[in-house]
Amino acid sequence: MKLNVYATPDSVSDKELKDKTAVIIDVLRATSTILAALANGCKEVIPAVEVEEVIAMSKNYEKDSFLLCGERNIQPVEGFHLSNSPLEYTEEQVSGKSLLMTTTNGTRAVRRAMDAKDVIICSLSNVDAVAEYLAEQEDDAAFICAGTDGQFSLDDIVTAGAVIHRLRDRVEHLDLGDLAVVSEYMYKQCADDLHKVIKHSLHYKRMMECGLADDIEYCLTLNAAPIVAVYKDGVIKKLDGVQA
Amino acid sequence: MKLNVYATPDSVSDKELKDKTAVIIDVLRATSTILAALANGCKEVIPAVEVEEVIAMSKNYEKDSFLLCGERNIQPVEGFHLSNSPLEYTEEQVSGKSLLMTTTNGTRAVRRAMDAKDVIICSLSNVDAVAEYLAEQEDDAAFICAGTDGQFSLDDIVTAGAVIHRLRDRVEHLDLGDLAVVSEYMYKQCADDLHKVIKHSLHYKRMMECGLADDIEYCLTLNAAPIVAVYKDGVIKKLDGVQA
Repeated sequence: MKLNVYATPDSVSDKELKDKTAVIIDVLRATSTILAALANGCKEVIPAVEVEEVIAMSKNYEKDSFLLCGERNIQPVEGFHLSNSPLEYTEEQVSGKSLLMTTTNGTRAVRRAMDAKDVIICSLSNVDAVAEYLAEQEDDAAFICAGTDGQFSLDDIVTAGAVIHRLRDRVEHLDLGDLAVVSEYMYKQCADDLHKVIKHSLHYKRMMECGLADDIEYCLTLNAAPIVAVYKDGVIKKLDGVQA
Repeated sequence: MKLNVYATPDSVSDKELKDKTAVIIDVLRATSTILAALANGCKEVIPAVEVEEVIAMSKNYEKDSFLLCGERNIQPVEGFHLSNSPLEYTEEQVSGKSLLMTTTNGTRAVRRAMDAKDVIICSLSNVDAVAEYLAEQEDDAAFICAGTDGQFSLDDIVTAGAVIHRLRDRVEHLDLGDLAVVSEYMYKQCADDLHKVIKHSLHYKRMMECGLADDIEYCLTLNAAPIVAVYKDGVIKKLDGVQA
């Protein structure tokens, strides 16, 4: 099984996605939030790149059946129901609803993967479930990290490494690209305490400055939302029957 | 001192180079070769992106005053004097000559840095000299890795890490971007035996398949060409009076 990791959506080409499972990572915080929402019973998450897109889409939904969700540069979007904190996406808030969502980095990464054979959502919240799914599918995988402001982001890389490391026990032969090798090394440096490495990430530091330590604590908890979520036809839904 | 590492020339923007020292790395093998040549007394190295450029430039030089140098996809270019093996660039071959050079990855990285305040060439051959130079200059630095075929390449990342690690003793406060953090970690994993990590790099494996183990051995030898080389006005020259 070939595993490649891409630090940003711009660094992967369409031909590198063909016939592969794309694994989208934006651990602080978009994919953590999406997984929390789906684990807590929302119907679906529809990612958009622009705020205007989200607002336009909402006109197609019945009142009370949807929520406007997301952030720009860590801050909530004015007029939206929920920001990008996974802690807001409780069962009470989201159950049965369609979440129309846009974030600075993560939703762009999801959309980039449209040409892959299969697209799944990943954060530290579901590393076991993702490893299990990839091992069963057997397709080569491309981990697409959202990055931060178009740049390499350590938090996403460690997350990819956490999945890769879990594949060692499940798949006989792994063929790792250079950044996949690095991702696994970096994860192993901090498997006992993820903060130890991830705290050096620019995005982690910015979130701490914004008073989001509780969000970070949630996002760095392994397997907090142990589900598989698949992106297909513009919509992310939980895959039933899969629990890690 | 702020230190950022960029995995490929495409991942750095002009504004990220402004007022900075750009440190160009293509350890397997362009920058190792350039440094070997300058250490062995060539007059200058003139990097070009295309083979045709090299041939066109040569018309401006007197016979016997220049050499056509480089490779495409690891193989020598037909009609050129020297390939990209640093072992060919002996004093006997290169002394006093202008080397007109093009490589698949490295010379593109050199040219990308033109907007930086200052551009220097780096490989494992001169990590001490580069660290010393950066510490004296005090400007922020941007390490631009050539990468391999436009992708993250572990060998270049470890090289950046080797310099960053040496700056710890020389500079009071280092502010590292995410990939700079990773680069330093990866270097520290293999400081005692660089092959231990770099052998996992795709480019290393390709070179071994091409029978270039001796080149690899040279390129992974620390401080084999302990000079500083500066790129200015289209030309790379050795900085006199600097020896690590």
